[in-house]
Amino acid sequence: MGREGAGTYHSRRWTPPTYTVDDAGKIVGGYVPTGPNNWGRWGAEDKRGTANLIDAAAIAYAASLVTRGVVFSLALPIDEAGPRWPGRPAPKHYFTMNGADGISGLPYSGAVPGVTYTDDYIDMPLQGSSQWDGLAHWAYQDSLYNGYWAGNITGSTGSPDLDIAAMKASFVGRGVLIDVARHLGVEHVEPGMAIPAALVEEIAARQNVTFRPGDILLLRTGYLKPWYSLPDENAQRAFFSRVPGLSRDIIPWLKEHDIAAVAADTVSVEVMPNEEPIDRPQPLHHAALVDLGLTLGEFWALDDLAEDCAADGVYDFLLSAPPLNIPGAVGSMINPVAIK
Amino acid sequence: MGREGAGTYHSRRWTPPTYTVDDAGKIVGGYVPTGPNNWGRWGAEDKRGTANLIDAAAIAYAASLVTRGVVFSLALPIDEAGPRWPGRPAPKHYFTMNGADGISGLPYSGAVPGVTYTDDYIDMPLQGSSQWDGLAHWAYQDSLYNGYWAGNITGSTGSPDLDIAAMKASFVGRGVLIDVARHLGVEHVEPGMAIPAALVEEIAARQNVTFRPGDILLLRTGYLKPWYSLPDENAQRAFFSRVPGLSRDIIPWLKEHDIAAVAADTVSVEVMPNEEPIDRPQPLHHAALVDLGLTLGEFWALDDLAEDCAADGVYDFLLSAPPLNIPGAVGSMINPVAIK
Amino acid sequence: MGREGAGTYHSRRWTPPTYTVDDAGKIVGGYVPTGPNNWGRWGAEDKRGTANLIDAAAIAYAASLVTRGVVFSLALPIDEAGPRWPGRPAPKHYFTMNGADGISGLPYSGAVPGVTYTDDYIDMPLQGSSQWDGLAHWAYQDSLYNGYWAGNITGSTGSPDLDIAAMKASFVGRGVLIDVARHLGVEHVEPGMAIPAALVEEIAARQNVTFRPGDILLLRTGYLKPWYSLPDENAQRAFFSRVPGLSRDIIPWLKEHDIAAVAADTVSVEVMPNEEPIDRPQPLHHAALVDLGLTLGEFWALDDLAEDCAADGVYDFLLSAPPLNIPGAVGSMINPVAIK
Amino acid sequence: MGREGAGTYHSRRWTPPTYTVDDAGKIVGGYVPTGPNNWGRWGAEDKRGTANLIDAAAIAYAASLVTRGVVFSLALPIDEAGPRWPGRPAPKHYFTMNGADGISGLPYSGAVPGVTYTDDYIDMPLQGSSQWDGLAHWAYQDSLYNGYWAGNITGSTGSPDLDIAAMKASFVGRGVLIDVARHLGVEHVEPGMAIPAALVEEIAARQNVTFRPGDILLLRTGYLKPWYSLPDENAQRAFFSRVPGLSRDIIPWLKEHDIAAVAADTVSVEVMPNEEPIDRPQPLHHAALVDLGLTLGEFWALDDLAEDCAADGVYDFLLSAPPLNIPGAVGSMINPVAIK
Repeated sequence: MGREGAGTYHSRRWTPPTYTVDDAGKIVGGYVPTGPNNWGRWGAEDKRGTANLIDAAAIAYAASLVTRGVVFSLALPIDEAGPRWPGRPAPKHYFTMNGADGISGLPYSGAVPGVTYTDDYIDMPLQGSSQWDGLAHWAYQDSLYNGYWAGNITGSTGSPDLDIAAMKASFVGRGVLIDVARHLGVEHVEPGMAIPAALVEEIAARQNVTFRPGDILLLRTGYLKPWYSLPDENAQRAFFSRVPGLSRDIIPWLKEHDIAAVAADTVSVEVMPNEEPIDRPQPLHHAALVDLGLTLGEFWALDDLAEDCAADGVYDFLLSAPPLNIPGAVGSMINPVAIK
Repeated sequence: MGREGAGTYHSRRWTPPTYTVDDAGKIVGGYVPTGPNNWGRWGAEDKRGTANLIDAAAIAYAASLVTRGVVFSLALPIDEAGPRWPGRPAPKHYFTMNGADGISGLPYSGAVPGVTYTDDYIDMPLQGSSQWDGLAHWAYQDSLYNGYWAGNITGSTGSPDLDIAAMKASFVGRGVLIDVARHLGVEHVEPGMAIPAALVEEIAARQNVTFRPGDILLLRTGYLKPWYSLPDENAQRAFFSRVPGLSRDIIPWLKEHDIAAVAADTVSVEVMPNEEPIDRPQPLHHAALVDLGLTLGEFWALDDLAEDCAADGVYDFLLSAPPLNIPGAVGSMINPVAIK
Repeated sequence: MGREGAGTYHSRRWTPPTYTVDDAGKIVGGYVPTGPNNWGRWGAEDKRGTANLIDAAAIAYAASLVTRGVVFSLALPIDEAGPRWPGRPAPKHYFTMNGADGISGLPYSGAVPGVTYTDDYIDMPLQGSSQWDGLAHWAYQDSLYNGYWAGNITGSTGSPDLDIAAMKASFVGRGVLIDVARHLGVEHVEPGMAIPAALVEEIAARQNVTFRPGDILLLRTGYLKPWYSLPDENAQRAFFSRVPGLSRDIIPWLKEHDIAAVAADTVSVEVMPNEEPIDRPQPLHHAALVDLGLTLGEFWALDDLAEDCAADGVYDFLLSAPPLNIPGAVGSMINPVAIK
Repeated sequence: MGREGAGTYHSRRWTPPTYTVDDAGKIVGGYVPTGPNNWGRWGAEDKRGTANLIDAAAIAYAASLVTRGVVFSLALPIDEAGPRWPGRPAPKHYFTMNGADGISGLPYSGAVPGVTYTDDYIDMPLQGSSQWDGLAHWAYQDSLYNGYWAGNITGSTGSPDLDIAAMKASFVGRGVLIDVARHLGVEHVEPGMAIPAALVEEIAARQNVTFRPGDILLLRTGYLKPWYSLPDENAQRAFFSRVPGLSRDIIPWLKEHDIAAVAADTVSVEVMPNEEPIDRPQPLHHAALVDLGLTLGEFWALDDLAEDCAADGVYDFLLSAPPLNIPGAVGSMINPVAIK
């Protein structure tokens, strides 16, 4: 695909863009957000966006929520069976030395009998399985959050700005679970249902939980569970063509409430197909990642935690969900833990 | 390499072992530990070893240590420059869609101009970078912890027992930093120095910290920092031929104190070369992983945390260090966080 | 899975085998073929099997068949769309430096403007796409061809015997195309049809071609073409559950005619499902790879060549189909060329 | 890195280029070669360059050179030990199912005892080991051969023009070995020596061989052999800082003689460091790949063939060196065979 400078796509044809890029790697003469945004809020060189909202007080408060000493992993198994965005290959887990090799006689050291070891590898999409979409995962008119130029994300350098490693000590704070499925009394929210801000507030009220600046919002739809019993690959493909998720009407709400991050047990956090009229695909991705600098979590496993929250009536907890420290990366698989 | 049934190695020749394996996947007629061990302590089918020691009370107590609301990432950057065991290839971070592709005209959707995205992958050793060595990473006479047979760890099945995924909600608890380098007044502990239990206790006393059952011991030697300024690959190889680390004399101490896990800022936690007489290579790996069922952390980045502990005099904290949820894996790269 | 020494499978349970392995890596007290085989025919240490049949005279004769100077590639495209055995992941082609990166400003050398380059990688199954199945790809009762022990094929050593690299100068010789689909007057041979030796001979006669020792037999069924227009992944899976291919009755014929190798435009060369009674799965794989030492080629693209053979009535040609020189590998993707 | 539109590099800053790209994917208003070139010679849409020179007559003539029926593989082993351009990772060969797994009890089919199989993978640079550099491997001022725009080579599409798959039936023709090392009476040509056209002609004369249009020139320097006994990685790095190879003075000669391709037993075909004055790095890569459309082969293993040519005095032969059929790829590892 090629494109005109103005953005229209053509097969192969290309006209250069009209902006330039300055020494800080920021676009001059390009996109400027008109809706809710945080460009410049934490300085022209900020690379962490709403992760800045989780300050020391928020962290200390979140830790104070731990009373029972129970831990919930919010990660799906990283394997070939798990859900993933169509087109992304499955994680590949392989060994260079496995246990059977040792039975055959491959030693740790030929000199000293008896000791063997195993060594394994993973090759997987950083946006596969339970994960964070980093701020450099999305661009509009070649701009990333805070005006950084997407063109500087190249194959051999990775993302010099806004990479996931900039978040290595982030996303430890207060998590708040909004259990949409339980509120609606369903196993899983129906495919294609848009969840508006009003519903989030209604559920919070019913759950007796109020939001605080720097919160990480966990949205449970129950949608992933059926994936594992789908009969075949066609059904899997269809499964992700209609997905429940946040309505784009929540965008101003996220800004007003200073939400630090949003994660959900779905493929995209936001509703799919996107709401009409469609002026851009994935409008919440655009608003969150590009305009607000708000990191999105996808494919989180929230069922066990939700069960526990329903049992004890407590829907907030200490969440520890730092990404892997991969410089230049635009996302990261994670194992978030909720501690109550 | 082949081997005799009794374990001696030969080029290619092989004699079957003399044991059998039962329906639970456990060796009958094989190795039984004679030193300190936890086989059977949490049941014949236990797959978590000393991770069992971190109970609800320990977790709640650890959370109560958080007062200031500061977070330290204990992960090295996952990149080609970082230290790794000689012979293991570097992490490979690659993109199937990068930002420059978007500048050239590759769209998210041809229908709606302006939106582009990026997608990246990681291919890396699970025992590379900051990591946990899982219980299935080490075998002696074909036995893993609790008597499980190493032979059931195959290329297409991974490790059916003792995999790292069994630990997905583990290693959230109290961390205790023992700063050996600072105690000795050196930038880094000298290559090849064995750190005995007595020294660990002496440092703990000086740091005003006492151990509790279920603690995760973090051992700082300062050894990794020089890696990054080594002039060439030869120097890197030499760097790992002599490494400071725990003496094997600490093995009974680990058992007596019910330490749940040990992590260090070195390649192997234990001293290298191993102490004479060498009856087996990596005796601490054997004792910890096979006998005690005690998970080992390697290549942790402890310098920033150590600076802070020296400043406020507080050496214990909430540690959140769950592995990735990879079924069948024998280890996992991680981003542990210390929260004070 | 585990097994009894005698071979019966059990979940996890295991009893050691009753054979031993000698210093040459060969099983003592194990399987000995009773049907047509070439064990020992080219010496106890032979690792090339029927590739030995392509001698200098056969090669020179094959070259003499070239008259028109036309070349046909017999390789399918190596891409995600191509056919592959269910369960094997698709080839992954990725760049560390692509052309768009250069547009964004990534240079070959910062010192000299203007020069950029591209670098790409492939990660793929060696038994994916058009390929040779090497002799170490198949074992019966732990024995490979000529009695080598399968257990010496480990993750870090690969296959020390019978690897594909031993064939690096092999499979240059006379190819003979047997066009079953054209003979039957069909677009493609019907799924599940077994092709017996008699039919191969009948077609050869009609095509006016006779076999010579050391020939490489190319079997065209036309079966792959429909793959590319299958509507979905379910159809693809079904596509490989019934496949036309050689009947096992051809095994003695292959031995009598001293065929050096057999390749086909199908997933498995042999008919699937296998013919009743099924005493072992894939009996032709067993007979060819283990007993005869005869290398099998799968997923070859024979349509263009077949068109040309039908036009000029010449069904034999110089075939050049060496595998990649990968030590320890048990197979290799290839680009075979037929030269007429 | 960023750049000015005119090409000067800056850290991060970027100005759009001044050219446009038309619907055929070709640059309008950009680079036009002034020296020897083949742009437009085989049409505006040509994607094969000098591979066009190997016509039917040339192929038939090449086949007629086969008299003795001997085959030489010209491929280095694809393994971790082999030479490669510094910075490119080594090939990684791994198994998902190996022979030892079968010994432990992993069956082909649980229903039928005794049958096991092996499956392996390769993950490697397409420009690693013995290989072709395709025409899309090199760009000057964003132009590829024949004026195609490098920007259309993206991560998810690969190279839509000039890909290596366009050559799938190419490079079967007459090979001519020029044995520089033997002519000079040395084990290997000295590091950094530039080999001019006059020396190539002098050697050809002494070898009694004359060039014909469409020939593939194989240049032997003997340079690779010492690689395998270098003491360490530093020596390996130094080894490729000074390499013998073709002088850029050969560029007009290649054009005049209608050479179809050039391959050598070195890392870059051309001399390194490049000859002064250096107006661009790797001037032969530029001239061959961009201007002439002439594919370059690197890391070929020529020693065994050279021994034979010296013995029988015959330096020309049938060469079969098709690349793998990888759509979108900019290079391919290969196993070229010379048949005499």
